[in-house]
Amino acid sequence: MSACGAEYGLISIDQALSLIQQRAQAGCVEIIDLNSALHRYLAESVYSNINLPMFSQSAVDGYAIHADDVIQADSTFALIGEIRAGQSAEFELKHGQAVRIFTGAQIPNGTTTIARQEIVKAVNSKFVDSERIDPKSEETKSITLTDNLKAHADIRDIGEEISVGQCLAEKGQQLTAGAIAALSMAGIQQVLVFQYPKVAVVITGDEVAEMVEDFASGKIFDANAPLIQAWFKQRNHTVEIFHVADTELAVKTLLDDLSQNYQLILTTGGVSVGDYDFIRPVALDLGFEQIFWKVKQKPGKPMFFAELQKTDQTSCYLLGLPGNPAAVYVGMQIYTSTLLDALQGQASSLQWFSAELSHDLKADARERFLRMSVQFDQAKLKVQSLAKQQSHMLSNLMQANCLVRIPAGEQIEAGQIVQGIFI
Amino acid sequence: MSACGAEYGLISIDQALSLIQQRAQAGCVEIIDLNSALHRYLAESVYSNINLPMFSQSAVDGYAIHADDVIQADSTFALIGEIRAGQSAEFELKHGQAVRIFTGAQIPNGTTTIARQEIVKAVNSKFVDSERIDPKSEETKSITLTDNLKAHADIRDIGEEISVGQCLAEKGQQLTAGAIAALSMAGIQQVLVFQYPKVAVVITGDEVAEMVEDFASGKIFDANAPLIQAWFKQRNHTVEIFHVADTELAVKTLLDDLSQNYQLILTTGGVSVGDYDFIRPVALDLGFEQIFWKVKQKPGKPMFFAELQKTDQTSCYLLGLPGNPAAVYVGMQIYTSTLLDALQGQASSLQWFSAELSHDLKADARERFLRMSVQFDQAKLKVQSLAKQQSHMLSNLMQANCLVRIPAGEQIEAGQIVQGIFI
Repeated sequence: MSACGAEYGLISIDQALSLIQQRAQAGCVEIIDLNSALHRYLAESVYSNINLPMFSQSAVDGYAIHADDVIQADSTFALIGEIRAGQSAEFELKHGQAVRIFTGAQIPNGTTTIARQEIVKAVNSKFVDSERIDPKSEETKSITLTDNLKAHADIRDIGEEISVGQCLAEKGQQLTAGAIAALSMAGIQQVLVFQYPKVAVVITGDEVAEMVEDFASGKIFDANAPLIQAWFKQRNHTVEIFHVADTELAVKTLLDDLSQNYQLILTTGGVSVGDYDFIRPVALDLGFEQIFWKVKQKPGKPMFFAELQKTDQTSCYLLGLPGNPAAVYVGMQIYTSTLLDALQGQASSLQWFSAELSHDLKADARERFLRMSVQFDQAKLKVQSLAKQQSHMLSNLMQANCLVRIPAGEQIEAGQIVQGIFI
Repeated sequence: MSACGAEYGLISIDQALSLIQQRAQAGCVEIIDLNSALHRYLAESVYSNINLPMFSQSAVDGYAIHADDVIQADSTFALIGEIRAGQSAEFELKHGQAVRIFTGAQIPNGTTTIARQEIVKAVNSKFVDSERIDPKSEETKSITLTDNLKAHADIRDIGEEISVGQCLAEKGQQLTAGAIAALSMAGIQQVLVFQYPKVAVVITGDEVAEMVEDFASGKIFDANAPLIQAWFKQRNHTVEIFHVADTELAVKTLLDDLSQNYQLILTTGGVSVGDYDFIRPVALDLGFEQIFWKVKQKPGKPMFFAELQKTDQTSCYLLGLPGNPAAVYVGMQIYTSTLLDALQGQASSLQWFSAELSHDLKADARERFLRMSVQFDQAKLKVQSLAKQQSHMLSNLMQANCLVRIPAGEQIEAGQIVQGIFI
């Protein structure tokens, strides 16, 4: 049996993802301010209490007019007032009358159309020769159109976008900046969302120098804690990071404690079969049930996923990522992402693209995630692998903009279609 | 002249973007902790002070061996000790000797190859029949290989990824989570980055109900402040939001004050030619120089960009977005994004994809940004427009995943290649 060859008993990437989705249960829901809900998922559909637009309004700066059907150029209307955006239109426009109006302002009853200011000139005014009139001037008493005007021009009708009772966003909708804006516009100020799991991160490995002062021969600088911290920060979440020594007692004490207070424990390192790999045996000892261990993938083969069912009927999940930084990177982008979605009641939000591989790739017995560069060429996606793909190397993340999944088995030919995600 | 037709004197989208890039000057640079530098741009290239790996190390759990060239199966080596990850290897391995070693541990001098533990069995040990030996047992004194082993197997050589002095990241590199991890691994803890501009956001429009209590007939709920706030939050930045009444005095007082304390003022509304559109006249009055006003685009035609050169040789920039929420959305994604990059010394980081349009689109005299849905079909991107594209509508942002740029002029046929960005 080779470390890189056919390995019996290992599950596939798809099986691992599917087990995560099956086993991870959503936690509680909570009501929060919409302005704090970025990236969260709605736990119920949201319906509108209002029409959008809330009232019929002008789409332009111009004049609201009451007239019959089409208006011919040179028609004249008596100017009876002005309505600014934010003012209510409390009077009724009668036949032959016009009112100065601005974009977004409520049109008065009786309005049949809007003349944008570019086709209006004033008469009985000192601005008679100008294309633009001054409605504040007392001398402006009527307006004349310089062009024909159809009925119902430049009116935004009440409810033309959304009617009262209409669904604004469905359960499960992720609240992007755009979704938050759209809900705000409909007056929504609070939303029921799935709780975001409380996450603890455990960095194992006596070789990891936690601080510069710890640095000594045989030690390495840590990439995993900064990576995971930044990954969560990008998603506007903070996590607590714990470092633990490679002893059974230290690992056991920490995991026991964390499992009582967190919904998810992410660990790096210590999940292989080395003599100092304590994460898995300790977790099993603490009552975690193994959901899977070892995935037929590169990087990240010894990944471990387990669940502790607690006496209060809640669970603590443990995702044990291998310690190599490339395995942690893939683990976060693919598995942690899917797990966090599942813990919020969602199918994976991973957006797989399909792309054409620009070159041949050697066969590998394991499915691989390769850091690549994607380019768009006349509506076609083409991906190209980068150098330095080994699991202890990360430097190509300066150039990589996607993570591409390469099937196991035969050599892959240039032109083959592969799946990937943008990173 | 029509509001939607050919409009003389308007600049194109490309001209507007190019003027932003030409005129916006980067501010200062600062040294910050790498862990706080997410999304920032490097102001100088970063070179490595170390080799990566820092020392030659084992890539697997197994045994470091000193032997000649290829080793035949059944060869036996004396087991002289153990080196764990994080320990230094202070002795020299002699011919015929082996040492127990773990992934990432420093290999001792004299190591010629690594035997992964799967091809090793112990002799002179009570575990003689097991595939796995217990190095902690005093009875384990030698190991035997069960397979042939080539020289220099499973060794990660010192400096094979990065050598001392090598460039880790170039000036201008944006610090993603992956980039932060890669720099951390090389021991980098602080970085020189461009300062992120101090941004003030001014929401104009007397129709905007700032709070529910302000709500009255003719008023609307505000989408713009929540949108801009969430947009910056997604990028891990906070901005200060100011609401201002539609009076010349209020706008002037506020802009005068903000221009002294911020590098960038973003405004929404008040930039058209309505009688209560005070942003532009007030800015010009305060000494801002107009860089452009009005872009031949939909939504967002009346966009205004100006610069105030201050006596201390620094500048305050003002980007005046129209008040319609769709114009604000496009303004943020396309123009504010480009401007923030320019203020950090960078070309625009907008990643334009090319995609095939799935359907015909009516001609329009202005270039348009349409909210669309993109799908991947056998390495090809296909985009489809969504309903409710008008500038006062945002509800399609629940479905949209891209913003597509549609050329002005003729009708667009299905199959035509268009450019877009993911949102």
